[in-house]
Amino acid sequence: MRELTLDDLDDMVIGATLLGTGGGGDPYIARLMVRQAIEKFGPVQIVEPGELDPDGLVLTTAVIGAPTVILEKVPAGTEFVACVRALAAHLGKEPVALMPIEVGGMNTLIPLATAVEMGLPVIDADSMRRAFPQIEMTVFTLAGIPAAPMSVADEKGNVVVFETTTNQTAEKLARASVMQLGMANGISCYPMTVRQVAAHGIQGSMSYCVELGKRLNAVKRGEEGAFEEFLGFSGGKRYFSGKIIDIDRRTTAGFARGTVVLEDLQDADRVMRVEIQNELLIAFEDGEPIITTPDLICFLDYETADPITTETLAYGQRINVIGLPCAPEWHQPGMLELVGPKAFGYDVDYVSMEGVTA
Amino acid sequence: MRELTLDDLDDMVIGATLLGTGGGGDPYIARLMVRQAIEKFGPVQIVEPGELDPDGLVLTTAVIGAPTVILEKVPAGTEFVACVRALAAHLGKEPVALMPIEVGGMNTLIPLATAVEMGLPVIDADSMRRAFPQIEMTVFTLAGIPAAPMSVADEKGNVVVFETTTNQTAEKLARASVMQLGMANGISCYPMTVRQVAAHGIQGSMSYCVELGKRLNAVKRGEEGAFEEFLGFSGGKRYFSGKIIDIDRRTTAGFARGTVVLEDLQDADRVMRVEIQNELLIAFEDGEPIITTPDLICFLDYETADPITTETLAYGQRINVIGLPCAPEWHQPGMLELVGPKAFGYDVDYVSMEGVTA
Repeated sequence: MRELTLDDLDDMVIGATLLGTGGGGDPYIARLMVRQAIEKFGPVQIVEPGELDPDGLVLTTAVIGAPTVILEKVPAGTEFVACVRALAAHLGKEPVALMPIEVGGMNTLIPLATAVEMGLPVIDADSMRRAFPQIEMTVFTLAGIPAAPMSVADEKGNVVVFETTTNQTAEKLARASVMQLGMANGISCYPMTVRQVAAHGIQGSMSYCVELGKRLNAVKRGEEGAFEEFLGFSGGKRYFSGKIIDIDRRTTAGFARGTVVLEDLQDADRVMRVEIQNELLIAFEDGEPIITTPDLICFLDYETADPITTETLAYGQRINVIGLPCAPEWHQPGMLELVGPKAFGYDVDYVSMEGVTA
Repeated sequence: MRELTLDDLDDMVIGATLLGTGGGGDPYIARLMVRQAIEKFGPVQIVEPGELDPDGLVLTTAVIGAPTVILEKVPAGTEFVACVRALAAHLGKEPVALMPIEVGGMNTLIPLATAVEMGLPVIDADSMRRAFPQIEMTVFTLAGIPAAPMSVADEKGNVVVFETTTNQTAEKLARASVMQLGMANGISCYPMTVRQVAAHGIQGSMSYCVELGKRLNAVKRGEEGAFEEFLGFSGGKRYFSGKIIDIDRRTTAGFARGTVVLEDLQDADRVMRVEIQNELLIAFEDGEPIITTPDLICFLDYETADPITTETLAYGQRINVIGLPCAPEWHQPGMLELVGPKAFGYDVDYVSMEGVTA
């Protein structure tokens, strides 16, 4: 068990923004929640599964809704405690720890604030190590672990508890409730034992996020060799340096969809197109896919190295496009059906980043 | 406590169709469910609140969904037991009886089948004594009794339990789940004590339904004076005898909406227009409202006296339009805001049927 320092928190925020791959909400709002919670309730305790009772119950929490609404509505906080408590009551068992389901975007940090308020540690693991738009898009689904029993809560006292036959039905039912409850709610899902987290979770996600953020902060400070160190640590690669020449954005069925087109800063004949569904999902160069989900597409500001979210994309913006390989735990049977390009409706084959060097 | 006979059941089916006021699903499908349940589990026991422990828990059950889907999909039955069991588990208490929330349409009969399967009696009361399209439209809402905790279940094993801050939110959340679960599901809501049922329910609803059906069956058999006896018992009035000259039907947001126009059989200058939202809601003659919700508008076949549901309306059909006064329990503060014409979006004042004679 170790305490998360405030320095760790700052690194985690920038790491989480990067792992949000353009989506996942605003970690800066969530940082405020975590700092307030630490001041009021004490430090965040990070634990490994091996430090806990293997039969102990682990619950997750996250914000669920429409990205545009989540950005405008600062979470009250009570909705996360409420959904965790409702699920624990439904299961008739108290959790020994919380865990993020999504280390990427603001959902990296929300469980920290909830955990300190509830006096629980947070397990250094998750189920995505990036942001994805739907709750069935987890390595737990690949392992056959149900998302339900699951709960959704708002800050007013409305709570919904679900038992579902598939994780796809869980996603549809949760989304339908969220659309009636203001489009920015707390969710607790994938209740499991510590043993299951150890066997099927993505291990060390939060540490990875902090380390990634630490290295990106070094890049931002302009330290010698920092960019190479950042790519070396993450296994990432710079694919493109360009400026935005076209953006098309639309909100459909609660998802922020769009397409952004970049032109190379040196060679106007080189063009990259990136498809968005809340997150940056596929990057094409000259019509060929070169980075594909579940690998991560990250936009960094060309000058400042700040990770850029899709909401702030603007015409003329200059961007470095970085590809990061997804967590190795994703590479198992069923991955492409669940989170590959075709799962998002693109008739595109997955292009592996494995073996890529900077 | 008394047993419901098979003769009672037949009277109840036609009474329930009449009280469905054109909607409420098909009681003939529900009769099949009740007969099968009686054969398998034994007779239906009807009780008065005074026969039960005043502190005992009463649960309701009903089908919820889109009328068009409910008509095409025969309920499996398991969804009703599932939602009642889920709500009892959530409350941590077993019910002493079930109760219909809606005596009108198929929801009159569904609790009977569920109750015999669960070995429970059915309380002779409800919250509408007619059909209404939304779950907050009950005398319980007027009494300040919450619809939630509430549960929705399908026949596959999906179950959703809700805690809500208002009955309007309960309606919206239940509807949203139902839209993801096939549009024909079981719901259990308004958990309350026997004491609350006695104080705030519409008493004797099922007996009223059986007696009404018995008298309508006499009309159908062409017995002397039966029609007058039917109107005398119910306080009803024949408003119009006409043939359908226009029907406009559309399904929007899960509701069957429409308008039907009738021309008087004797006087082609007399025209009646009836507005439909699942149920027949307002009847206008020459543009003036003459029967208005919550009073009941019932269409009877001109020749056979069969109650006609909105799904079977056809051009040229000859119909007697009967108005029945709503249950007296409706007449209390808040009635018009909850179930009057304006609650359904019509800029029309309520026209009382009180004092009407046949």
